Amino acid sequence: MTDIIHRVGIKAPLSKVYAALSTIEGVAGWWTAATTGVSEPGETIDFEFMTPGGERIGAMAMRVVAMDPDKQVHWRCTAGPDEWIGTDVVFRLVHEDDYTIVRFGHRNWREAVEFTEHCSMKWAIFLLSLKQLVETGEGRPSPNDIKIDNWN
Amino acid sequence: MTDIIHRVGIKAPLSKVYAALSTIEGVAGWWTAATTGVSEPGETIDFEFMTPGGERIGAMAMRVVAMDPDKQVHWRCTAGPDEWIGTDVVFRLVHEDDYTIVRFGHRNWREAVEFTEHCSMKWAIFLLSLKQLVETGEGRPSPNDIKIDNWN
Repeated sequence: MTDIIHRVGIKAPLSKVYAALSTIEGVAGWWTAATTGVSEPGETIDFEFMTPGGERIGAMAMRVVAMDPDKQVHWRCTAGPDEWIGTDVVFRLVHEDDYTIVRFGHRNWREAVEFTEHCSMKWAIFLLSLKQLVETGEGRPSPNDIKIDNWN
Repeated sequence: MTDIIHRVGIKAPLSKVYAALSTIEGVAGWWTAATTGVSEPGETIDFEFMTPGGERIGAMAMRVVAMDPDKQVHWRCTAGPDEWIGTDVVFRLVHEDDYTIVRFGHRNWREAVEFTEHCSMKWAIFLLSLKQLVETGEGRPSPNDIKIDNWN
């Protein structure tokens, strides 16, 4: 099993970061503008990714496994790229030195493939977008995300 | 063992990206301005990291394990943070769709700790700096790197 892991610090209270991770409107502000569904344990959230020109790049669905206010959000992928199915996306929050620290993991990939490398870099870009959203009020969700390679 | 892996695509010929990875001047343009030593197989490169205010954050040394023009650069850490000693930093290059693709690995961490999460995010920032350096002529090496959390 392989995990993508990142750590980012956001100058904001836990509750503001948690809101950006635990609500549809919040996630739409930093990951993809096309976020729909119900963000409650046991329910499913749907995500679509487009090019700036409106072409569909991909889509995925996450079942909400757990939501602990100001502590963590845990999703499990139920639809999307084959490599993602069954993987876990977990955001754990702690407060430290005026920062809310997000300890991010996209865990339980069956193996590390080139697409994993791409996704690791891309998650870093989206965590920067999350930081920017919470600190400034404006993130860079898809389709306005920073493009990092020939895949996206 | 744990690996940090990333993939980034740079709109430039292989030779330009290889130069940014295989020369002291190149690396000083995207990782840390305080890069010294000899970038040749068997030799050692030294890196220092400072805050924008001039305070020393840390330092490390890498022995050059291999350099294959336009293909790869491979370093092994011989001094620095305890978790880094003995780990491998590898940049593999391939050309694809007008991009030079950098397949990056910081490999063979003894275990995944919170510092690994920080370093994974920070490597993504520095790979963006590498992309920016090669594509625009100006990177964001330390001490002008983007700060991501309360550690750096």
